[in-house]
Amino acid sequence: MASYQAPLRDMRFILDEVFQASQEWSTMPATQELGMDLVEAILEEGARVVQAELFPLNQSGDAEGCHFDKGEVTTPKGFKSAFETLAQGGWWGLGGNPEYDGQGMPKMLTVAFEEMLYAANASFALYPALNTGAALLLDHHASDAIKRLYLPRMYAGEWLGTMCLTEPHCGTDLGLIKTRAVPEEGGTYRITGNKIWITGGEHDMADNIVHLVLAKLPDAPQGSRGISLFLVPKFLVNADGSLGERNALGCGGLEHKMGIKGSATCVMNFDGAQGVLIGEPHQGLATMFTMMNYERLSIGIQGLGLGEVAYQSAMDFARERLQSRAPRGAVAPDKPADPILVHPDVRRMALNVRAWNEGGRAFAAFVASQLDRAKYHPDGEAHAAADDLVALLTPVAKAFLTDRGFDATVEAQQIYGGSGYCVEWGAEQYVRDARIAMVYEGTNGIQAMDLVGRKLFRNQGAYLARFGAAMRADMAGEVPDELDAFHQAGRRELTRLEEVTAGLLDRAVDHPEELGAAAADYLDLLGHVAYAWMWWKMARAAHQGLAVQGPAGADFYRAKLAVGRHFIERMLPRTEALARQIQAGAEPLMALEEEAFYPQ
Amino acid sequence: MASYQAPLRDMRFILDEVFQASQEWSTMPATQELGMDLVEAILEEGARVVQAELFPLNQSGDAEGCHFDKGEVTTPKGFKSAFETLAQGGWWGLGGNPEYDGQGMPKMLTVAFEEMLYAANASFALYPALNTGAALLLDHHASDAIKRLYLPRMYAGEWLGTMCLTEPHCGTDLGLIKTRAVPEEGGTYRITGNKIWITGGEHDMADNIVHLVLAKLPDAPQGSRGISLFLVPKFLVNADGSLGERNALGCGGLEHKMGIKGSATCVMNFDGAQGVLIGEPHQGLATMFTMMNYERLSIGIQGLGLGEVAYQSAMDFARERLQSRAPRGAVAPDKPADPILVHPDVRRMALNVRAWNEGGRAFAAFVASQLDRAKYHPDGEAHAAADDLVALLTPVAKAFLTDRGFDATVEAQQIYGGSGYCVEWGAEQYVRDARIAMVYEGTNGIQAMDLVGRKLFRNQGAYLARFGAAMRADMAGEVPDELDAFHQAGRRELTRLEEVTAGLLDRAVDHPEELGAAAADYLDLLGHVAYAWMWWKMARAAHQGLAVQGPAGADFYRAKLAVGRHFIERMLPRTEALARQIQAGAEPLMALEEEAFYPQ
Repeated sequence: MASYQAPLRDMRFILDEVFQASQEWSTMPATQELGMDLVEAILEEGARVVQAELFPLNQSGDAEGCHFDKGEVTTPKGFKSAFETLAQGGWWGLGGNPEYDGQGMPKMLTVAFEEMLYAANASFALYPALNTGAALLLDHHASDAIKRLYLPRMYAGEWLGTMCLTEPHCGTDLGLIKTRAVPEEGGTYRITGNKIWITGGEHDMADNIVHLVLAKLPDAPQGSRGISLFLVPKFLVNADGSLGERNALGCGGLEHKMGIKGSATCVMNFDGAQGVLIGEPHQGLATMFTMMNYERLSIGIQGLGLGEVAYQSAMDFARERLQSRAPRGAVAPDKPADPILVHPDVRRMALNVRAWNEGGRAFAAFVASQLDRAKYHPDGEAHAAADDLVALLTPVAKAFLTDRGFDATVEAQQIYGGSGYCVEWGAEQYVRDARIAMVYEGTNGIQAMDLVGRKLFRNQGAYLARFGAAMRADMAGEVPDELDAFHQAGRRELTRLEEVTAGLLDRAVDHPEELGAAAADYLDLLGHVAYAWMWWKMARAAHQGLAVQGPAGADFYRAKLAVGRHFIERMLPRTEALARQIQAGAEPLMALEEEAFYPQ
Repeated sequence: MASYQAPLRDMRFILDEVFQASQEWSTMPATQELGMDLVEAILEEGARVVQAELFPLNQSGDAEGCHFDKGEVTTPKGFKSAFETLAQGGWWGLGGNPEYDGQGMPKMLTVAFEEMLYAANASFALYPALNTGAALLLDHHASDAIKRLYLPRMYAGEWLGTMCLTEPHCGTDLGLIKTRAVPEEGGTYRITGNKIWITGGEHDMADNIVHLVLAKLPDAPQGSRGISLFLVPKFLVNADGSLGERNALGCGGLEHKMGIKGSATCVMNFDGAQGVLIGEPHQGLATMFTMMNYERLSIGIQGLGLGEVAYQSAMDFARERLQSRAPRGAVAPDKPADPILVHPDVRRMALNVRAWNEGGRAFAAFVASQLDRAKYHPDGEAHAAADDLVALLTPVAKAFLTDRGFDATVEAQQIYGGSGYCVEWGAEQYVRDARIAMVYEGTNGIQAMDLVGRKLFRNQGAYLARFGAAMRADMAGEVPDELDAFHQAGRRELTRLEEVTAGLLDRAVDHPEELGAAAADYLDLLGHVAYAWMWWKMARAAHQGLAVQGPAGADFYRAKLAVGRHFIERMLPRTEALARQIQAGAEPLMALEEEAFYPQ
């Protein structure tokens, strides 16, 4: 009853028509041989395998969950075999470093594939998502010897990586971690401590599990500047890459969660496990951010993928469901009632979901394009500009995509009426699976603090100025009448954002709590403005497509313009409220004594 | 770890200080002997029994769910015994008609008790909620003989009522129902058909189950004007009230749902079951609305109760959780980190939840007061005004309280970070249990259509004019400086609402889809304005309380004013966006062809 077809037409539109990806790739040596033909073939094959192998395991994986027995974890029926099928197709090394058998595909392509993974089976997608991030970290920070041993096997899906940060008493505030690393002869370390909420900490899908663990050295300074990062494999690895003895670590149990039940969320105990330092001592948090930033965008894509599959499933339901008559009278007089999409309020919900999804897909591609430039662009200034935009937009991509992804799943569920609440239709699982994305990899509140603190206040708006300049430059020039509404909206929203920003930076100088008070609304505001930009870009490309391609693609382009218009007129007004809420400042939040929050 | 104490102080404040309930009751013969002393004693005992008997079964009931075996349904462990304990306390007849052994308490009191029931155990609360509505319907529409047989037993919880409307192919559009009623000798009918989503359709908590069933007579006109209502008991009832043979009806299975797992949601099959007509032939939908309107407010209270328990549980977590330091430096330097409520963004979430809850509690009491006037007031004009306000505000109470209740549970869950996603903490259950309230008893989209269609357009804003006049009258007179922000906000929002309304009524004359296009945002807007009024009333009462009661109650009143200020400054700006979205009209929604919604 649930349904999913990867939105290949929209992905092609975004890559080819909105972002001129071939042209973009041609400017960078690492990608210059890549053309849209190959990329389309990859996406088509990716869609086929994801639809055939992963989507059918989504509801069964949720119903069955993972199993824990005496330290061993078994994933739901079918997961292991599907994982191997995709491994054989080379999918787990799609963006990996070619020097170590990765396929070196740009982020603009891999985000599209990731969206398919999350849409088809969010629980399943987390295993490769952690692995890819762990491999990226090793590629950046590990020695060549380690990379040679680990990366080919991780890209092949033989070994899978994890990220071990959280402890029972600390998640956000990692300076409080208690896990210890004691140096031993031979340059290795003994790691001891307890980690919780470790995705894929233990499972049956790979021969080895590669834990990246934050711990403190004996001489560590206090707080977050005293954290180091260690590679701690489940099985020790011999010099030839064969597996040695079992390391002194194990899974103590699984969490029982609201959703993503096919993802093994593990308590991990390290009892003097042998590990290797990655990066510099006491620089573990900075090192870990290579992985964390990857995961943040990836989790944003989780929100997007779930929003898309929720939309498609809801439309499958809406197509068949007949209920009441259209406002101007029957449109299907031969049937007992009209399809529910005749009702303006059902359309409103469907268009909300779709506008979030399509805006989100474009935004993810935009952030990915900046990641590609930051990684590959030969020109120093282009590189630096991309770095700044990535820094600014990573928390937005994580939080805004997941907030809107959750909203999308809830609104899609509403389209079903009572059926959406019943397990068999699948809609409620998307809601439960999407909820976690607002929480893990740094809660969305933490993303918002990162945005207004490190990414805005610390540089006094320099990154935002980059964003504003790029958006304004993209909107310069002649504007056809049909695009005027998009153009005006984009310019108006950018100006509003800049005014709000100036006021906030000003107030925050003497009032440090202003940043935290504004954070969530500010991120929400910036997200809306970024989507307004994306909708401008998409409307322009659709307008051009209509002119160039004629009747053949007209339905697609007209729908794109209509969804965009809904966004501009019926969703974007939210920014007026957000601006006023930010301008209300911190005082209303701080007026109440802490004690007055607690029930008497 | 989850925690619940009924908010008795706030309930007393609302009844006594905001609405002067004693004075209100003294104007109506049916309630004039009721005083706050008795009401407080009832609420205190209600809180005690609900906390002791129902809250401890909330998580276990969710984990266990209901069981179905060969037509029999067993409720979760402890439900039956707790139900009997409360039955012995007389709680199931609290608002019932005293002529038939009910206790005749006014709605202003019973909504407060209902809030406790839903907060403590939403699944459990549904059994008495359906029963109370069914009894109300019988009290209004059944013969004296039936009332004498059924009502005392329903008030005593010996027999429990249900509402059988939905069929597999129709929920909203009840004109499509296929269940048939064939008259037989003796004035009874034989009912045949299948009903789904019947809350408490079968269970082990009562000796008999009293189904109120919509069905069509052989000569029924087409559509919703051809529906009749029948009383169809599980066991036939002899003239002396003893139980006769089993009726020809049964439970075909239970739904597997996202939440409210302790509530038995039944497929019910009627196979020529014997029933009695209630009300007039073909007037069944109108008759059923007596029950439905009751349930709509009751389900609104479900949203409120879950928002309250979610708040309290999140604050229990926040009190213990130490993470990072306050914006101006440590406030608990002796501890490893500060309590998370030092962070403005955590306060923002907590204040949002609390402002929705406290505004909702006042709004529910206000609607209840109008229901009491409509039922009991001796003055014809007061009666008529109350009738209009009840008609206008019932869909708002159902939809706005449940939308905000769901938001509240989601935002409360966010305060926990990752713990909120783990089952053991209870926060995720509140989200799952709150989600259904936006769907059943008429989806919130249907409530919005009822509001803009029947309650606004049909009378060209006459009910809304009543609302505006009452709100404006309540805000007349001298305003102390400290209340100026509340006063200005209320007046501004009311004026905006009236302008938006005039524009909508105007556009809808020639464009019928304008109503549906505006519906959800209009309901949201009216809800915000109603809460702004409630916050004005509460701020005024708190201001007076500070003056009269001095230091003793000062903490409570100051907190009330601070929460209200947060609502005015940081939540109410949403209305600007809603107004603009309504004014954007239907055209953006209707531009897309139906076919273009469906995935290709």
